[in-house]
Amino acid sequence: MREGSGALKQEFLEKKLKVVRKTMDKRGVDMWITFSREGNEDPLAGDLRFDHLTWRSAAVIERDGERTAIVGSLESELVRSRGMYHKVIGYGREGAAPALRELVSKRRPKRIAVNTSRDLGAADGLSSGMERYLRAALKAYAKSFVSAEDIAIALRAKLIPEEVELLAKSIRECEGIYDELEQEIRPGRTDKQVHDAAQALIEERRLTPAWAADHCPSVAVGAAPAAHLGYRGDEIERGNMVKLDFGVRYEGYCSDLQRVYYVGGGAVPAEVKKAFGAARRANDAALTILRPGIPGWRVDAAARQLIVKEGFPEYMHALGHVLGRSTHEIGPLLGPRWPNRYGKQGEKEVEEDIVFTIEPSVEGRAGTCNLEQDVLVTANGYRELSKSQREIIVLG
Amino acid sequence: MREGSGALKQEFLEKKLKVVRKTMDKRGVDMWITFSREGNEDPLAGDLRFDHLTWRSAAVIERDGERTAIVGSLESELVRSRGMYHKVIGYGREGAAPALRELVSKRRPKRIAVNTSRDLGAADGLSSGMERYLRAALKAYAKSFVSAEDIAIALRAKLIPEEVELLAKSIRECEGIYDELEQEIRPGRTDKQVHDAAQALIEERRLTPAWAADHCPSVAVGAAPAAHLGYRGDEIERGNMVKLDFGVRYEGYCSDLQRVYYVGGGAVPAEVKKAFGAARRANDAALTILRPGIPGWRVDAAARQLIVKEGFPEYMHALGHVLGRSTHEIGPLLGPRWPNRYGKQGEKEVEEDIVFTIEPSVEGRAGTCNLEQDVLVTANGYRELSKSQREIIVLG
Repeated sequence: MREGSGALKQEFLEKKLKVVRKTMDKRGVDMWITFSREGNEDPLAGDLRFDHLTWRSAAVIERDGERTAIVGSLESELVRSRGMYHKVIGYGREGAAPALRELVSKRRPKRIAVNTSRDLGAADGLSSGMERYLRAALKAYAKSFVSAEDIAIALRAKLIPEEVELLAKSIRECEGIYDELEQEIRPGRTDKQVHDAAQALIEERRLTPAWAADHCPSVAVGAAPAAHLGYRGDEIERGNMVKLDFGVRYEGYCSDLQRVYYVGGGAVPAEVKKAFGAARRANDAALTILRPGIPGWRVDAAARQLIVKEGFPEYMHALGHVLGRSTHEIGPLLGPRWPNRYGKQGEKEVEEDIVFTIEPSVEGRAGTCNLEQDVLVTANGYRELSKSQREIIVLG
Repeated sequence: MREGSGALKQEFLEKKLKVVRKTMDKRGVDMWITFSREGNEDPLAGDLRFDHLTWRSAAVIERDGERTAIVGSLESELVRSRGMYHKVIGYGREGAAPALRELVSKRRPKRIAVNTSRDLGAADGLSSGMERYLRAALKAYAKSFVSAEDIAIALRAKLIPEEVELLAKSIRECEGIYDELEQEIRPGRTDKQVHDAAQALIEERRLTPAWAADHCPSVAVGAAPAAHLGYRGDEIERGNMVKLDFGVRYEGYCSDLQRVYYVGGGAVPAEVKKAFGAARRANDAALTILRPGIPGWRVDAAARQLIVKEGFPEYMHALGHVLGRSTHEIGPLLGPRWPNRYGKQGEKEVEEDIVFTIEPSVEGRAGTCNLEQDVLVTANGYRELSKSQREIIVLG
């Protein structure tokens, strides 16, 4: 049940916790507290074998590897049975605070990381009410709280080779469905029919959609606005561009790809070719500089500038995001420096072992081109995990 | 998909929003803001047709009924298509703050309710990072923020008749499985076999468990500790007490019932009878005073005092909780005044149209008796939605 919800597989857990401890070391964090409860569970609880708990519960991971769970006494057995924590402390009517205080004052950590984040939802699992409780419980230490953002990124976004393999398989499945779907994209069919056919193929392969089924895939016919919308009810006509945004979840790992089609017997119009070419060149411009250490905004800027220079409007989103056990995974954003919208997400540096989407949009008059592909950052650059679309696909 | 995740059915939505507005009126709240984003979605987002959104998104419901959504511009179409909001404002690189500020300064609300709560997880969906953003965005109004706890309770816990009907059906299904399960509870069977048989019956009836499958049901043989644990690997022997804690989800509504059995041919030992009798009397003592207006702790105290007076240890949990679209639904708690553990949950008054479990535990030497039943609070008292267990069930 924990794995079904996208939590880390048991066989990967210890390896990933090593990555977590390395990050704690690098950031000088002595103790990481995930503080969760029923009704609004911390999104990292599943990974930490700390989900489905009723009362206020603290998962404490220390820099030296020690793991302690503080939970309502009726649930200590349950947490113990999951085998993750070296020590499980059950509390009664006194609540969670005394055991928390005792543990922290015994260890005297200089920096305590908690799951609060301005920019990253999945790293912001400490709710406002729980934060107040925790600050009051650990009053003497509240000034040493820091954001566990980078630790959460280590856990979610930095993939071990076994995870990369599963993600690559997810991409293969997605590409397989794309290939089968081509016969549906033809004059007379509606965007809804294409969407529904994709859903049927997902089911046939016993997969699940990578995001909400109602807009997975998103099917845009002609100049339909690129939006997180499944379909508008448009019929495909000869001469239409069609763009799909689609991904599947395979053993918990998500793919996310876009393909652009031209429907009709005749030659592809020059303006479509031009938009497609700009989109291809934008992807390539970003990929040329993608490597560990570069801030995400610079990768975005390479594509953004090219598109504007070629006379197309600036796209109003980010070039790409991390891909992993969720489609929009937390991590560095390959996105613009728009602090009001993206905060400091684009300032973070690209790191090895992270998979990114590359998806700048080129809004042509006949429709939007977006050749979204998925790439893994390696020690010196990147590796393509998906086939990159280099020509517009002409369908009849 | 939204309904699958336990969100409110479309046909109930407008009626429930009336209950919400009544509560806003009663509490003098002019504006209710649910502020959510991807990765750590507010648990109320589904009910408010506001789920699966990527960027910071505000669902603003006003006392006069006006509903406004402020979302990333790429998702305005999606939110519009859900038909819930009268106005959908899409933002671009400027982020969510300007539109929020504009709306609030136009309306000048005296009290703004936000989803923060010390005691109730599902009413605490405003994350710590999002709270800081919202307070900064609405600086001039941050001092008028109050907890939306009671509004969330209105939405989740106060049931309209159509919901009560579904919940009653959920209870019928659960009782049906209990009846079929009796043939599994006999000497030689293990707690795990009983657990697995229940899971198979859930599947056969195309239901889902009311809580995490690994401990739904929880099967306790003999003096096994009452805990949120599925099973320990015990074999049922003649002379054992067996206790199950079990519930199903039917069309989104949860049941939660316990039954106590005695396995073996001979007469039920006196000490088992004594514990069972105390448990029955404890339930009845609580039910006698259950009615709108009484604080939850008083209902709990009636059962608690009786159990202690009859010589059994005080139970270390609450007498009962709200039942609804989740098993531990938010609302008044029929629980003790243990502020460190339960905060002020037990101080809240019982209200009409809320379903409660009644489940005081009597720890006898041969095992724990808990005759959990589900009751609906009515204008003058309560109505039993489940069959109450009045005799120990002898099997084998």
